[in-house]
Amino acid sequence: MTRETPVPLRFGDEELESVLVARRDSARRPGVIIFPTVMGVSELELGVARQLVHLGYTGFVADLFGKSFRGSSRDVMFNELNRLRSDRARLRDRLLVIVESVRKLAPIEADRIVAIGYCFGGGCALDLARSGADIAGVASFHGLLDPPGLEPRPIKAKVLAFHGWDDPLAPPEAVVALGHELTAAGADWQLHAFGNVAHGFTNPGASGALPGVVYNALAAERSWTALINFLEELLG
Amino acid sequence: MTRETPVPLRFGDEELESVLVARRDSARRPGVIIFPTVMGVSELELGVARQLVHLGYTGFVADLFGKSFRGSSRDVMFNELNRLRSDRARLRDRLLVIVESVRKLAPIEADRIVAIGYCFGGGCALDLARSGADIAGVASFHGLLDPPGLEPRPIKAKVLAFHGWDDPLAPPEAVVALGHELTAAGADWQLHAFGNVAHGFTNPGASGALPGVVYNALAAERSWTALINFLEELLG
Repeated sequence: MTRETPVPLRFGDEELESVLVARRDSARRPGVIIFPTVMGVSELELGVARQLVHLGYTGFVADLFGKSFRGSSRDVMFNELNRLRSDRARLRDRLLVIVESVRKLAPIEADRIVAIGYCFGGGCALDLARSGADIAGVASFHGLLDPPGLEPRPIKAKVLAFHGWDDPLAPPEAVVALGHELTAAGADWQLHAFGNVAHGFTNPGASGALPGVVYNALAAERSWTALINFLEELLG
Repeated sequence: MTRETPVPLRFGDEELESVLVARRDSARRPGVIIFPTVMGVSELELGVARQLVHLGYTGFVADLFGKSFRGSSRDVMFNELNRLRSDRARLRDRLLVIVESVRKLAPIEADRIVAIGYCFGGGCALDLARSGADIAGVASFHGLLDPPGLEPRPIKAKVLAFHGWDDPLAPPEAVVALGHELTAAGADWQLHAFGNVAHGFTNPGASGALPGVVYNALAAERSWTALINFLEELLG
């Protein structure tokens, strides 16, 4: 069965506390970093990590907001989201520091890492690819697609974006812009668009919380199956 | 092993000759209709059908152009393509007649049919969905996306389109238009877009034949894997 270990990390004067989800043995396995939604580290991401461990990977649920925000209210977290996204260069540094710390963890193969993320975290996964990070790939689930407005860098990670076509946070124009951006950066990219699907489609608790945010079991299942195929292609 | 049987069909004064690809036993299995590229029934589609038979389906490579055009030159076939596409209502009738004939074939379960297609045939698969045909689903590989200009009908078939983002025959605006069209028709639809991928990406013989038509082994493999998942979801 899995063991779950808090992993502290300082970023500037902030104390982050991520969670390593791994098997109990000491073997190195390919690692999957999970960037959470605006709500931060939660059972949602830990559940994903546990499933990935059963599939043979080591999971790492990354804390982006800081340990003190764990379990905070939606209002507080949206403020923090705005804080982090108001300086995309610093957000990029935060993501890169996390990736480098993950490479050093015992149950993870340093050169076989994929990052995935949900909503805000999906945008972080894309920003990580945009940073030129030397990882195998990133996958975004209903992520924010808007470009960071930084000097473009060649993208090394393979990119897969799962997207609800009716997502009010990323209309078709944003999808088209993302395609141009990723192509210009030389990325191997894919986008899986789901018709009649809104924002937050993987989250069973999403519906009703905010307008345009609706759980969709079929899109959740389809994107999960496609993620597994993507991980198999990248990590074997 | 598979057996391959010519299946004649009259459409108006035209003689079509499709190919049924099935196991040697007499069991009924879910059927997959394959609409060929502009070149008509060829080893490409027969190869796909054989692979599908190994996966537990019965394949049917549909002749849309007529028996006499088998093996004709590119120029002749493009003329025929223009003829068929110049009257999309009649093309729709042609597709529907084929589907109804397939339902009656012994090794096919009449209520478990999916249609797929390549290039011109991909557009035919989409047109079949647009017709309101009562089949489980359609999948288009680098299909022509332009709408038929007919009175819209509610779409029953689940739709999956595999699309090269650099396909000169279907630029991003056409993708966005397709999304609007399929959503308005109430379809369960998905689109898998592949960055840096052109038209004809599944066809190993495509490169160099025409500008903007390039084989892409990775996109071919990814779309094939996704097709298998789609068939499993729809046909079990």
